[in-house]
Amino acid sequence: MEQTNLLDEIKNLIQNSDNKELIYRIEELHPADIAEILLDLDEQEQKYLFKLLPHDTAAEVLNEVDGDTFAAILENLTAEKTTEILDEMSLDDVADILGELSESEQTKIIELFDHEDAADIRDLMHYSEDTAGGIMTTEFVSVREDMTISQAIEELRSMESEAETIYYVYVTDYIGTLVGVLSLRDIIMSNPNRLVSEVMQSNVIYVNVHMDQEEVAKAVAKYDLLAIPVVDNETILQGIITVDDILDVIEEEATEDIFRIAGTGEIEYDENDSTASHLWSSVKSRLPWLMITLAGSFVTGAVITGFEGQISQNAALVKFMPALTGMGGNIGTQSSTLTVRGIATGRINSKEISKNLFREGLVGIFIGAICGIATSLVAGLAFGQPQLGPVVGFSMAANMLTASTIGTLAPLIFKNIGIDPAVASAPFISTTIDITGNIIYFTLVKLMTGI
Amino acid sequence: MEQTNLLDEIKNLIQNSDNKELIYRIEELHPADIAEILLDLDEQEQKYLFKLLPHDTAAEVLNEVDGDTFAAILENLTAEKTTEILDEMSLDDVADILGELSESEQTKIIELFDHEDAADIRDLMHYSEDTAGGIMTTEFVSVREDMTISQAIEELRSMESEAETIYYVYVTDYIGTLVGVLSLRDIIMSNPNRLVSEVMQSNVIYVNVHMDQEEVAKAVAKYDLLAIPVVDNETILQGIITVDDILDVIEEEATEDIFRIAGTGEIEYDENDSTASHLWSSVKSRLPWLMITLAGSFVTGAVITGFEGQISQNAALVKFMPALTGMGGNIGTQSSTLTVRGIATGRINSKEISKNLFREGLVGIFIGAICGIATSLVAGLAFGQPQLGPVVGFSMAANMLTASTIGTLAPLIFKNIGIDPAVASAPFISTTIDITGNIIYFTLVKLMTGI
Repeated sequence: MEQTNLLDEIKNLIQNSDNKELIYRIEELHPADIAEILLDLDEQEQKYLFKLLPHDTAAEVLNEVDGDTFAAILENLTAEKTTEILDEMSLDDVADILGELSESEQTKIIELFDHEDAADIRDLMHYSEDTAGGIMTTEFVSVREDMTISQAIEELRSMESEAETIYYVYVTDYIGTLVGVLSLRDIIMSNPNRLVSEVMQSNVIYVNVHMDQEEVAKAVAKYDLLAIPVVDNETILQGIITVDDILDVIEEEATEDIFRIAGTGEIEYDENDSTASHLWSSVKSRLPWLMITLAGSFVTGAVITGFEGQISQNAALVKFMPALTGMGGNIGTQSSTLTVRGIATGRINSKEISKNLFREGLVGIFIGAICGIATSLVAGLAFGQPQLGPVVGFSMAANMLTASTIGTLAPLIFKNIGIDPAVASAPFISTTIDITGNIIYFTLVKLMTGI
Repeated sequence: MEQTNLLDEIKNLIQNSDNKELIYRIEELHPADIAEILLDLDEQEQKYLFKLLPHDTAAEVLNEVDGDTFAAILENLTAEKTTEILDEMSLDDVADILGELSESEQTKIIELFDHEDAADIRDLMHYSEDTAGGIMTTEFVSVREDMTISQAIEELRSMESEAETIYYVYVTDYIGTLVGVLSLRDIIMSNPNRLVSEVMQSNVIYVNVHMDQEEVAKAVAKYDLLAIPVVDNETILQGIITVDDILDVIEEEATEDIFRIAGTGEIEYDENDSTASHLWSSVKSRLPWLMITLAGSFVTGAVITGFEGQISQNAALVKFMPALTGMGGNIGTQSSTLTVRGIATGRINSKEISKNLFREGLVGIFIGAICGIATSLVAGLAFGQPQLGPVVGFSMAANMLTASTIGTLAPLIFKNIGIDPAVASAPFISTTIDITGNIIYFTLVKLMTGI
């Protein structure tokens, strides 16, 4: 509510070109809030407002917007002003945003940086987006192990302004190999004449530049770090990843897992997309899953064809099919979701297959028995099919046991043979459960009632 | 692999009481890794190893284990040793772990603290676990606005050892109201004779003690903070929340959302639970959802009863039911998952119902048309039912459009009337889509083929 009023106020002030009041209102806001407002303005208003921002705020705001807005805003600033603003941004953020732009736009912007920074940005853009290299920044604080503490402090003073974080000071040898870490407190508390190598902690936790971002996030969370150093295959320090980027990674990976469990790919959409591009990205990410499921459901249909004789004899059999396959699907999804998420958060060890299977099997038998009794009562009493009651109930229990077993086993097997359990589980499990459910049902009907 | 070997080695060293080698091996490890090993040992081994740890490491290790292990380890240490270790832990962590213990165990441990800390721990235990108060620590660094910078530095020196983080120094007035924030850098760079109130930034982002932890996490992520101050209703500073706790919150909330989407409650289990308690907590969290779905599927069954005449006439109708309801369920789950997650991450604004609905409707029509054509071809060619081809295809398209609309609309409506969309969506959507799907199918069959 407040946000909307503020937006209207700012639109009005822009309309009236009341720069003094605009600057006064904007000064009070956090760059993240200014970025939110900016995204709700039209392009003319965006440019107007942006020109009023001081360089450091402008840089922080740019860091929060998407690539298209970024390019649009910078478009008609002077090269000089653009350079001043970009210099305030951290290089990894610049590289990330440039990744969203066309090659010609990229070149235009990279040319505004000095030679060294431009090279760093190009390097950063080479790493795959979801690896340690893709999310690290090259602006970090490091000192040499053979410096004295007072030399190290001198070094820090000269670098501090361009470094993204100084909570940890990394220590390298003369060729740049990571050999230790110092906290600011270590530095302040130590005798200035001691050597860095005497004061530093040499047992430093680091990640390789090619490590998957999900693994990096796990390491930072496990060891409660504010930043983690990134090294290449020769343990040469290449950059650092700060905890604010890790927050984004954890959210991103959770979203990815959720979408995969629901049987859809990653969708990169935002509210500002055009309807056509929204449609296209949705169809592209969702259709493959649906076509696999469709193919699976035809297999189920073919299986049912084998039971058409029974259905012709007693059409009442059909009305219990939704309950049987629906409940199978539900308990199967529950089991597979628990397993997939358990694997992702490390609570379930995929090596302990038999223990997990035994436990989920027990849950399946127990819940299946309860649902089976409920089903046979409803079949007998509410649906007036007392002769079908026992067989429907028994089918329900058998089906739920099978479904919970398949739901638990499939992700563990997929994980063990190196397939992402979240991706593989959704269409595979629902189809398998539909097929086994119908076979169990119609076979039991034949055996128990002779239909 | 390495981890397992290390575990075996340590078990061996404990067996042989080789304390010297044990201490040497343990010294190299991070407390988080020691905790992992500890959890894999039996109780005797745990106690043996724990006694060898220095106090500060022991405190960090205790912080990583669950309540039962915590109580078991402390059980037969002397009160003096226990006190020394607990003093090294941060009070919010102590409060969290105590929350898992019985009241008598809680009292026994709280009595080991001095009066002031004991009161703080009791206060922290009063806040609900998933609020700002429940995750904050009371050990923070604050200075008064009327101090000089040099007085503030004196104050910091005296407090630092018990404060959890000194990345930000919070500023209060004489009754404790939060009025500003200083960075360590502000302090180091400023003239020692200036007043804190002149140097501090007065525009400080804070949260209320009762705010939901999910909202706190959003604020920390949005503003890229390392810590956020927590105040009561009178803006009196009560504590701080550091970013390492926020990492846990984000992962916890994502897991909660995933389980809700899959139609199961929160399951708090871990690998060390007994099989009986695992069974009980699983059944308790999953059965309610399954019973609701079962009730829904009986409604679907009752709806199908109305079409039994048609089924008796042509049993081939049945074999397309899994495809129709299965595909409806799938696209419905995709739509609802995208909407639920979009609401959770803030990408979808629940106020823009009509825009989202229009877009997902378009996706439904488009994908429905493709799947409808595929279905009618398969029905006609592979299943040898050319007369059913068009009606099955048409039903598929209509059903997928309906399902994607319901999947998008339901979470948005639930959100707007104040029900958690993730909880409400799963059983409601699958049941509704089953019912509408069957009605659409059999009605179209009647209309188009006269069966």
